[in-house]
Amino acid sequence: MQEVYIDLGARSYSIYIGTGLLPRLGEYLKVLKLTPRVLLVTNPVVGSLYGAAAETALGDAGFEVIRAEIPDGEEYKSLATAEKLYDLAYTRELDRRSPVVALGGGVVGDLAGFVAATYLRGVPFIQVPTTLLAQVDSSVGGKVAVNHPRGKNIIGAFYQPRLVLADLDVLKTLDPREVRAGLAEVIKYGVIADQAFFTWLEENLERLLALEARALAHAVAASCRIKARVVQEDETEQGRRAILNFGHTLGHALEALTGYTAYRHGEAVATGMAAAARLAVALGMFPEGDAARVINLIRRAGLPVEITPELSTGDLLASMRRDKKVLAGRLTFVLPVEIGRVEIVRDVPEETVGRVLHLCYN
Amino acid sequence: MQEVYIDLGARSYSIYIGTGLLPRLGEYLKVLKLTPRVLLVTNPVVGSLYGAAAETALGDAGFEVIRAEIPDGEEYKSLATAEKLYDLAYTRELDRRSPVVALGGGVVGDLAGFVAATYLRGVPFIQVPTTLLAQVDSSVGGKVAVNHPRGKNIIGAFYQPRLVLADLDVLKTLDPREVRAGLAEVIKYGVIADQAFFTWLEENLERLLALEARALAHAVAASCRIKARVVQEDETEQGRRAILNFGHTLGHALEALTGYTAYRHGEAVATGMAAAARLAVALGMFPEGDAARVINLIRRAGLPVEITPELSTGDLLASMRRDKKVLAGRLTFVLPVEIGRVEIVRDVPEETVGRVLHLCYN
Ligand SMILES: NC(=O)c1ccc[n+]([C@@H]2O[C@H](COP(=O)([O-])OP(=O)(O)OC[C@H]3O[C@@H](n4cnc5c(N)ncnc54)[C@H](O)[C@@H]3O)[C@@H](O)[C@H]2O)c1
Ligand SMILES: NC(=O)c1ccc[n+]([C@@H]2O[C@H](COP(=O)([O-])OP(=O)(O)OC[C@H]3O[C@@H](n4cnc5c(N)ncnc54)[C@H](O)[C@@H]3O)[C@@H](O)[C@H]2O)c1
Ligand SMILES: [Zn+2]
Ligand SMILES: [Zn+2]
Repeated sequence: MQEVYIDLGARSYSIYIGTGLLPRLGEYLKVLKLTPRVLLVTNPVVGSLYGAAAETALGDAGFEVIRAEIPDGEEYKSLATAEKLYDLAYTRELDRRSPVVALGGGVVGDLAGFVAATYLRGVPFIQVPTTLLAQVDSSVGGKVAVNHPRGKNIIGAFYQPRLVLADLDVLKTLDPREVRAGLAEVIKYGVIADQAFFTWLEENLERLLALEARALAHAVAASCRIKARVVQEDETEQGRRAILNFGHTLGHALEALTGYTAYRHGEAVATGMAAAARLAVALGMFPEGDAARVINLIRRAGLPVEITPELSTGDLLASMRRDKKVLAGRLTFVLPVEIGRVEIVRDVPEETVGRVLHLCYN
Repeated sequence: MQEVYIDLGARSYSIYIGTGLLPRLGEYLKVLKLTPRVLLVTNPVVGSLYGAAAETALGDAGFEVIRAEIPDGEEYKSLATAEKLYDLAYTRELDRRSPVVALGGGVVGDLAGFVAATYLRGVPFIQVPTTLLAQVDSSVGGKVAVNHPRGKNIIGAFYQPRLVLADLDVLKTLDPREVRAGLAEVIKYGVIADQAFFTWLEENLERLLALEARALAHAVAASCRIKARVVQEDETEQGRRAILNFGHTLGHALEALTGYTAYRHGEAVATGMAAAARLAVALGMFPEGDAARVINLIRRAGLPVEITPELSTGDLLASMRRDKKVLAGRLTFVLPVEIGRVEIVRDVPEETVGRVLHLCYN
């Protein structure tokens, strides 16, 4: 088992990564000084696979479990679903030390986290991420949110969990497409912060695609460490944390324009990273050979590197202008200068972006 | 003008208290490094009295003002109203540095603050409190919230404003009943933390009731300082901050049982403080003479010290058990040991509470 300690002063916590962790959930919770009633948030898919194991683990440690299943799907990461959880929490008299446990992917984690952040102005929050994306990304860093009918993650907070348990066993039931989507973020960490890790990924990608436990443990822990380091420096995203958005400027636009149905988040990010690599080359700040390595690794992971022809460059530019990270209408990109190092580039000329996007169609 | 500096590290800010401040709102905002679009949240009553002055002040300083008026009344401090503000903010493309300015009493402040805390995971928040209660209490301390259909402030966050402007001039249009309700919290500060201030209140109460500016400035600043000191020690209410709930255990029950219509918050708190003083005497921890001073000052402020006969002791006890500050069902009270000092007393026997409540009917 690996432990990644997230050092945020009074809000510090640990991420535990390994196999066989879910059956030990109760033990881990027990040391946190909580009241014994737990709101376990999951969805029907994850609930039917792992709900019983979680309940047994919690029950054995003396917790009373109130299970809330929210429907599966991004569209249920909404204020309406949050309201149902508030109702349940209130009806079942959860108090300020009653933990909310998220058992699921990023959707469950973000929603349950938002409820934990806002119910009674904040109750203890525990993440048990069950997708690769959630293990390497959404459960680290304290961002929680629900979607607005017209924009993703528009309503949210920064709220740190008390504990994250990333059990690698649960990834075995994941759709391979979801595994690949998670790998997009893993590749991202290599590009933005760690050349050696990127090289390790080039050498071990097949082991990850085959869900080999030791390789997974290394990749998840390295990813969490990189994200944690960035988050510790800038908990509420005033500056440097924005490097985590490498690939996301275009990625978000791709997701938005296709109504969040055509792309998995990681697939959109993959395309966005490929485009950002090309944009960095076009701006003369990134060697063409390095861009080829990035694009090649993304492709080997079975992820898209090209934009589908239905999406016009004009629409993509318009959508990027609306990105919530955009301040006063300026287009900002996170662009690599070498593998393992990126810069935040503000005021990228729309023309250049448009020209590079044209190269990204197949 | 008086300045009260709230020292919370990176989240520090100042409260300015005085006359003639509203026309200078724009100047104050200008130094905060914000984008020029402001969401001004108010209600029709306050908006018609002071909306134009606020807009002129902001406009003169180069801000574009988007005014949002929410209906007047506690029932609109809801997730539904918050959603309307999210919609507006999103439609008008407010970005992460666009400030939300609350111009109104505690209802407007709590709601606008909740929206500011959660829109894009937090945008700059400015309070322009226009009731005495808001100036001495709700705008200090960083609690923001909306109500759940069945419970007050159930959904919220801790989120500090960037600036608070308490203009004493605007209190002149306040209903005298609202002034008295605000005085309840002012008296509370004397009892919990400052004997000299309590004595000053005994000597200057009539000046406050007459809205004399110099007396008001002293009372508002002293109140903010006391609340700030308590909040600085315990920003997220893990312990000591609970002393601010003096009078609130019963107060909340009175409000809840009457559907938040019969009592103004301060009136319920006034009755709660009188009851708490009596309870402390019953427990042998507070001199009877001091209890008489507390009850007398409350009464002189035109505030209720007795429970209306429609409310049964049984219902009040049941309601207090449900208070969100109650952990695992134990009744907790903040009780005075002398004027200027209180203690948090856990596990107060329900019997004793019931017996004392019986003495509180007229
Ligand atoms: N908070 C953050 O910092 C952050 C970062 C990145 C993404 N996100 C959010 O995460 C969400 C996406 O998360 P996701 O990719 O995990 O999607 P998801 O939560 O929708 O999970 C994907 C699918 O896998 C299923 N599933 C989950 N675990 C499984 C398992 N072990 N076995 C079988 N099936 C399983 C789910 O039911 C779902 O159908 C988005 O809402 C995104 O905004 C948040
Ligand atoms: N956040 C906190 O720490 C905190 C603390 C205490 C109370 N509160 C909250 O504050 C709310 C109560 O606040 P409130 O007592 O200010 O009530 P309020 O906001 O409802 O205002 C009272 C009335 O006065 C009117 N009004 C406001 N300013 C006026 C002015 N200058 N002239 C004329 N009329 C004016 C309002 O329109 C309203 O009708 C409650 O929701 C309570 O939960 C919050
Ligand atoms: Zn991402
Ligand atoms: Zn109060």
